[in-house]
Amino acid sequence: MESVIQEKGNLSIHTENIFPIIKKFLYSDHEIFLRELVSNAVDASQKIKKLASYGEFNGELGELKVTVGLDKEAKTITISDRGIGMTADEIKKYINQIAFSGATEFVEKYKDKGEDGKGDKGIIGHFGLGFYSAYMVAEDVEIITRSYKEGAEAVRWKCDGSTEFELGPAEREDRGSDIILHIAPDSEEFLDEHRLRGILEKYGKFLPIEIEFEEKIINNPSPIWTKNPSELSDEDYLGFYKELYPFSEDPLFWIHLNVDYPFNLTGVLYFPKLRNDFQGQREKIQLYSRQVFITDEVKDIVPDFLQLLHGVIDSPDIPLNVSRSYLQADGNVKKINGYITRKVADKLLEIFRNDREGFEKKFDDIGLFVKYGIISDEKFYDKAKDFCLLKNTEGKYFTFNEYREQVKDNQTDKNETQIWLYTTDLKKQDAFVQSAKKRSYDVLELGTVIDSHFINALEQKLEKVSIKRVDADTLDKLIEKDVALESILSADDQEKVKKVFEEVGENKTAHIVVEAMPVDELPVVITFPEFMRRMTDMQASSGQRSMFGEMPLMYTVSLNANHPLIGRISTTESEDEQKALAKQVYDLALLSQGLLSGKDLTQFIQRTVATL
Amino acid sequence: MESVIQEKGNLSIHTENIFPIIKKFLYSDHEIFLRELVSNAVDASQKIKKLASYGEFNGELGELKVTVGLDKEAKTITISDRGIGMTADEIKKYINQIAFSGATEFVEKYKDKGEDGKGDKGIIGHFGLGFYSAYMVAEDVEIITRSYKEGAEAVRWKCDGSTEFELGPAEREDRGSDIILHIAPDSEEFLDEHRLRGILEKYGKFLPIEIEFEEKIINNPSPIWTKNPSELSDEDYLGFYKELYPFSEDPLFWIHLNVDYPFNLTGVLYFPKLRNDFQGQREKIQLYSRQVFITDEVKDIVPDFLQLLHGVIDSPDIPLNVSRSYLQADGNVKKINGYITRKVADKLLEIFRNDREGFEKKFDDIGLFVKYGIISDEKFYDKAKDFCLLKNTEGKYFTFNEYREQVKDNQTDKNETQIWLYTTDLKKQDAFVQSAKKRSYDVLELGTVIDSHFINALEQKLEKVSIKRVDADTLDKLIEKDVALESILSADDQEKVKKVFEEVGENKTAHIVVEAMPVDELPVVITFPEFMRRMTDMQASSGQRSMFGEMPLMYTVSLNANHPLIGRISTTESEDEQKALAKQVYDLALLSQGLLSGKDLTQFIQRTVATL
Repeated sequence: MESVIQEKGNLSIHTENIFPIIKKFLYSDHEIFLRELVSNAVDASQKIKKLASYGEFNGELGELKVTVGLDKEAKTITISDRGIGMTADEIKKYINQIAFSGATEFVEKYKDKGEDGKGDKGIIGHFGLGFYSAYMVAEDVEIITRSYKEGAEAVRWKCDGSTEFELGPAEREDRGSDIILHIAPDSEEFLDEHRLRGILEKYGKFLPIEIEFEEKIINNPSPIWTKNPSELSDEDYLGFYKELYPFSEDPLFWIHLNVDYPFNLTGVLYFPKLRNDFQGQREKIQLYSRQVFITDEVKDIVPDFLQLLHGVIDSPDIPLNVSRSYLQADGNVKKINGYITRKVADKLLEIFRNDREGFEKKFDDIGLFVKYGIISDEKFYDKAKDFCLLKNTEGKYFTFNEYREQVKDNQTDKNETQIWLYTTDLKKQDAFVQSAKKRSYDVLELGTVIDSHFINALEQKLEKVSIKRVDADTLDKLIEKDVALESILSADDQEKVKKVFEEVGENKTAHIVVEAMPVDELPVVITFPEFMRRMTDMQASSGQRSMFGEMPLMYTVSLNANHPLIGRISTTESEDEQKALAKQVYDLALLSQGLLSGKDLTQFIQRTVATL
Repeated sequence: MESVIQEKGNLSIHTENIFPIIKKFLYSDHEIFLRELVSNAVDASQKIKKLASYGEFNGELGELKVTVGLDKEAKTITISDRGIGMTADEIKKYINQIAFSGATEFVEKYKDKGEDGKGDKGIIGHFGLGFYSAYMVAEDVEIITRSYKEGAEAVRWKCDGSTEFELGPAEREDRGSDIILHIAPDSEEFLDEHRLRGILEKYGKFLPIEIEFEEKIINNPSPIWTKNPSELSDEDYLGFYKELYPFSEDPLFWIHLNVDYPFNLTGVLYFPKLRNDFQGQREKIQLYSRQVFITDEVKDIVPDFLQLLHGVIDSPDIPLNVSRSYLQADGNVKKINGYITRKVADKLLEIFRNDREGFEKKFDDIGLFVKYGIISDEKFYDKAKDFCLLKNTEGKYFTFNEYREQVKDNQTDKNETQIWLYTTDLKKQDAFVQSAKKRSYDVLELGTVIDSHFINALEQKLEKVSIKRVDADTLDKLIEKDVALESILSADDQEKVKKVFEEVGENKTAHIVVEAMPVDELPVVITFPEFMRRMTDMQASSGQRSMFGEMPLMYTVSLNANHPLIGRISTTESEDEQKALAKQVYDLALLSQGLLSGKDLTQFIQRTVATL
């Protein structure tokens, strides 16, 4: 063996080895071939327009549309444009040398031209690999092309997916290119016109040059996000929304995004009417890069809570096809996140200030979104605390500060803490809401899936405020004042009555207490201590039912020492009668909390029928 | 311009253009670099073993472990092996020529050797690109390597990620390779030992050569799926389950997969104890290729219903990194699907036949899975119809045929159709289950999320069987017999009573009928017609609450013409008393179906308290 000598050299790539990899693995979805080839055709068309505008092309531009043709019998798909075309030399340079990107060179050459110094605007390609995606679906590819250059001859290029190509003269009257794909047997799914139109509409719906398929233009070359907001009316925005989501209700309002620095971003975000089950509402934001659809999975580009919005974001600065961890660390992506969050908060504050009434009407729909933002984003909270609304059972809306003012006098307890009362379900907690109203207490409605988390967040952020569900305890204990009601029942009788109920009630987790309540309250009141119940709710809302859902809910049974029926139980001689009466009022209390079911409910009904 | 001449030629790839793409876009997750480099080291170690077994290497094998070293200060990660190593010539061939796969050549050379003619078994690499994934995280990579060949000298290779490399002599005592990565500033996350160990454990937990990190072996080189089932005990299977899912309950049973033809597949699938919320149970099957972890997203490889299983599948024949549509069309994947489904059904049938009692005990856990399979896979149904069990409210289990026999005499209606009764909630439908039992009708428990779909599927498959919830109608109408009960109430009185209830009942969607029922039934019975209710249930179980969930549920109010209270309403003079009585029995019927809530419930409770 020879001994090793020090040397330098250059890495090389064997074309015959790398080509199969490019063909198979470059894109994870085969349908991408159409996006790539149509984008190339659009680029070629944009370039001829640009050359004309620079005075480097003086011929007639004519109609520049790109045509996609399908021939099922010949098993071909043809993409034709009237763009700049290619000479034989250009084919040798841009096609035969894989990954020699024409776009990059073009951008380099013209980057300082153009009125705005942005000569590259509108050029999609970057790596010069897009063309080869054709081989993901085609066994044979032909190019018939003729350059715009004066005297250029038409050229035909052909390659069957091996590394050997043929090049020769061809017939073509006009400038431009036809890319003819001879579809491989394992890809004949793409010869279906519905499939083909579907893919075109998915990726090409807003391409900047008209795309024709089966004699119809399938795209809108000037979507509103490319226009100046001052040129657009509400109808334009609503119309575009319908274009994006044909079967959706009108959105509530929208934000037009437009940034040049430090990154490029345009777009329109819509606030939809949110349903309570907001899982199904996600993945509605579409991400474009220079009007080419890229993805509707924007979870790394848009903060979680903003994914409830709908609409379009277009940015050439968002790195595509790279890993999630890379995206999360990318400085531009972080800035985009921050920018969108700020714009959204500013827009909400603006609507709140300019049209409080309109804002209140929309709040049932956007509240979920605002609350989600408050929980998950500190910067959003700093702005949202001034416009996030609380709604009470009368249908009145308050900001946090307004609500503090509203309940200050009546609902401050002896420790100087404000107790905010809420209901999660007006129907289920009706009896408790009624009782609270009798004392002129205000009750908030906080019953959506997000509210248990929202309440936790609020308590952490607001000082001297404690938030409790209206059935978390009897009212006198919920808001403890300095003066307490006196009990008619003696201490001995209280003990006696409590024992009767302990025997009657079979639930060992129930905690029985005797309490002096107003005479018009029910004889027995069942309440759920706030903390335990909230834990259970949060578990349920995060879908982890298994643990707490099966645990019996702890509750408190308060006997009203001032109710005549409780008094009667203490004075009745017969133990059976005592128990029968106690059982009936206990069951009624369980009923009012939805806790009477199964055999117990059947028996209660039969017993009550028998007394009629 | 020259005119175009016909010519042939070869495509070429510019290394300097393709290299950045390989570095950046080859893998979507940067952490993959570690999988690739450790796999390469394992391959090199396997090769030396193989050469020794063929008698082509006669030196001492020694310990073959692969070591991963981390030097935070130097910002390097080093992967070292004692495999075959490389000579300078081999480096030039395999490293300097990108995508010239050494593995492919090795496999080609030795494919006919080895006792089983499977000389390639245990070689992971395919394309020779894996090494270059190092540049996703490293700005500089060194290789220090020495071939196993006699007299070979150590070599040092170095390249900073441009296409220029350096090659020269080096010091290395032993055969094998060190790959030294100088981590780039934007990838310093990988210099964290927890992160590094996490990645190693994710991808390398079952690699066939020992992997050492921080002086500990992190892998199990001989996982049970590579062994012969006859060598394994229950403890081995349970132990391996704990290795895969440390915090899980023991599985119910398992299946050892082992196929050679027409595809290669080994693995162990476990039946876990399923919870009702089976969404969280998915993505537990891990896919390996020759003991290298690939993914736990197996949704295109394993049929939907089988994704509820846990375990490991290892197959070199499943194409990786390709598109979903490609996978779905892939012949091997379809065959794998079919094979796994068949094996699972056979295993279940075997347990059912050999241990009926044990099978019944497990059925609450596997029922969800079996039903899901029956709904979604015709071939699975053909086998499962003989072992799928129905459970009645007494806790007894029946096969479909056994159940037909069980209810034939008592529950065949006048049209010769068997009526199978079920409850979705023993507690909520208690009154109705009790009534059915009074007539010796059998009631099935079908209350899991999947059951509304399962019932639909069953009705389509079983002839002359109709399945109805126990509260879908009054019992006489649910199972219509030839003889009907007579009404005590005259037709006129029936009309009169009906009118009273129509005035009392405020719900316009309720349909009121008078019917002769046994005297011990309740005065008023509320039922939900089967079809409408089932639609609502299915909507709810598929999460689309918005449409039907808000629609008032249609129900039937049946007045028992033979109940004394209904009789009393017809004879009472005072209209107020009539109404008060009707209101109370109506409310009790609503209560028994959980339909009395909000203000109506509060008033009912207050009214009832006042009568005590």
